[in-house]
Amino acid sequence: MDFTIEKIDASGKARAGVITTSRGPVKTPVFMPVATRAAVRALAMRDIEELGFEMILSNTYHLYIRPGTEILASAGGLHAFMNYRRPILTDSGGYQVFSLSDLCRVRDEGVEFRSHLDGSSHFFSPEKVLDIQKVIGSDIMMVLDECTEYPAGRDRVEKAVRRTVDWATASYNYWRRGFDAGTQGLFAIIQGGVHPELRMECADALTGMDFSGFAIGGLSVGETRAEYRDVTEYTAGLLPHGKPRYMMGVGSPMEILHAVGCGIDMFDCVMPTRIARNGTLFTSRGRVNIKSSAYARDDGPLDPDCGCHVCRSYTKSYLRHIFRAGEISSLIYNTYHNLYFMKGLMDEIRRSIYNDKFPDIYKKWNNHYGGTGN
Amino acid sequence: MDFTIEKIDASGKARAGVITTSRGPVKTPVFMPVATRAAVRALAMRDIEELGFEMILSNTYHLYIRPGTEILASAGGLHAFMNYRRPILTDSGGYQVFSLSDLCRVRDEGVEFRSHLDGSSHFFSPEKVLDIQKVIGSDIMMVLDECTEYPAGRDRVEKAVRRTVDWATASYNYWRRGFDAGTQGLFAIIQGGVHPELRMECADALTGMDFSGFAIGGLSVGETRAEYRDVTEYTAGLLPHGKPRYMMGVGSPMEILHAVGCGIDMFDCVMPTRIARNGTLFTSRGRVNIKSSAYARDDGPLDPDCGCHVCRSYTKSYLRHIFRAGEISSLIYNTYHNLYFMKGLMDEIRRSIYNDKFPDIYKKWNNHYGGTGN
Repeated sequence: MDFTIEKIDASGKARAGVITTSRGPVKTPVFMPVATRAAVRALAMRDIEELGFEMILSNTYHLYIRPGTEILASAGGLHAFMNYRRPILTDSGGYQVFSLSDLCRVRDEGVEFRSHLDGSSHFFSPEKVLDIQKVIGSDIMMVLDECTEYPAGRDRVEKAVRRTVDWATASYNYWRRGFDAGTQGLFAIIQGGVHPELRMECADALTGMDFSGFAIGGLSVGETRAEYRDVTEYTAGLLPHGKPRYMMGVGSPMEILHAVGCGIDMFDCVMPTRIARNGTLFTSRGRVNIKSSAYARDDGPLDPDCGCHVCRSYTKSYLRHIFRAGEISSLIYNTYHNLYFMKGLMDEIRRSIYNDKFPDIYKKWNNHYGGTGN
Repeated sequence: MDFTIEKIDASGKARAGVITTSRGPVKTPVFMPVATRAAVRALAMRDIEELGFEMILSNTYHLYIRPGTEILASAGGLHAFMNYRRPILTDSGGYQVFSLSDLCRVRDEGVEFRSHLDGSSHFFSPEKVLDIQKVIGSDIMMVLDECTEYPAGRDRVEKAVRRTVDWATASYNYWRRGFDAGTQGLFAIIQGGVHPELRMECADALTGMDFSGFAIGGLSVGETRAEYRDVTEYTAGLLPHGKPRYMMGVGSPMEILHAVGCGIDMFDCVMPTRIARNGTLFTSRGRVNIKSSAYARDDGPLDPDCGCHVCRSYTKSYLRHIFRAGEISSLIYNTYHNLYFMKGLMDEIRRSIYNDKFPDIYKKWNNHYGGTGN
């Protein structure tokens, strides 16, 4: 795994680069669609390839619970299992353990939890989640970390940071001993909540190790938008220049634009696909709620500036009809369109960095999406 | 609209032909996927085109209730509304009125009913359903008929036949006066339950008029398989040779094969797509229930003899996983595969008629599907 920065825009922060993996290049800034359970919701994998995404994300916790490592190993890993040839990043499962599982006890050695599906008991250690990601065959693996809820007291966050650093250290050593770092990269995750000094403490400790990249975790958990943006900007500035920087779980057009402006390279989020299934669609002029009766007889395309097959084939009137009728094709078309939008947005951002026009692009989108906070 | 029989097999009954419509040819025997509410469940319309189907079916009742004729008229008809360029056949809505609507009162002039969606009152007359199908722009329209439940007493069925004939006569006259028969064909529907003499009475009356084709209705409503097959064979023999014969609502591989052997040309059924969403898949060796734990580690394709992109891309293990995980892509892949199977079956049937091998094909499929009654 290798990361090359090809261009830094005039502001000195936004950057365009390429992550080179053994399964092909990933141009950054990149948005990764989420295939939580070895499938992107409401899309065939061939649609994902058609959309041109170069990397997707899948979830270690979900894959471990079902289908399980035995079936994944028998299939020859996740790429073979889901018939997807391009790079895959997997999270460590830590976030899902803390947010989804029924019982969750954190110890120094790892975290004990019960499956949200059948209540069975399991234990994740820093080494165990790497073993699982080895079976998955992830191109980029993430370390196990301890996420804190929001709000959380300073003591609570401080303890989580210490544990995150300890686990990342154990992960790093385990990875260096037992993995081919060229084939399976490993990213560390900066925690620290909304406390700058804890973010710094965490970043100081983690960036001392030669991880393949660094992620910002523990955001988008309920903090205010101002807190979120401050922490993003501050923490991005703590990360080494020459490694990919990944903002976990972010997502919306304006937060991606803001984070790119802080020097972030990688994003993933279920939001574009989730709101699509709820009838909310991104367009070049802002969000459209396709359920609205305003579109009942609207024979125009969802977005006249969009080149996706949905916008070229169907009217707003039709998209509204199939949404109201509860047709599965509504989920398919809406998801396809929103991901096409996200891919186009990332391409536009990347071009603007090359052309030193990133601030213009930021302003343009802020006119359409700034007001909604998204 | 024109129908040409190109070949009759050695048995003298099974036939291969072409229905020529203003929107292109439809090779028969043909299976029409069902786009009830202006969408085929779980598939994008571009998938339907890719699968090669030459005609689909949509439902007058559902389209009338939602989006309604005003929106369809504003869109320029159903083809424009759903962006589908090939021929569309619509049923008259009669069956849905009798089976779905909350209150349904039949009078000589037509049928009064309440919408299953909002309880609003509506009235369908033979002329009204043609007016609706004119707005829809159906390439083949169906007359309003009165369906009977099963079992139904002879008196009840006899009255329904008389009314069906009266309505078909009114429909025929209305169609001849106000429609371009070359652009919008009209099929009559033979009713008569499981009573041969009533089927004959109905067929005698209806075939005296120059409809574009004739359908067999009122089957697959609970009668035994033997009754169903007897009525099919008997009624098919009552229909004029030179017009397309359409078995409404049929569907399964073996019933299609049986009906083709009786001289039927056209079929529609939601079954292949409905069972797909429930995890039941057609293969060259019989039905497969993809939920079965037998497939947990099965790295082979669903059907090694199938050329569809699902069978070429995914293992049974993966298809089982995404079905169990409740992924929408499972509905998409399963539906795609079952429709690909149906298209391949119809193509094979058609070829076998040309090559005088239809009985062999029938036997081959009966080995795999005969035992299940499907």
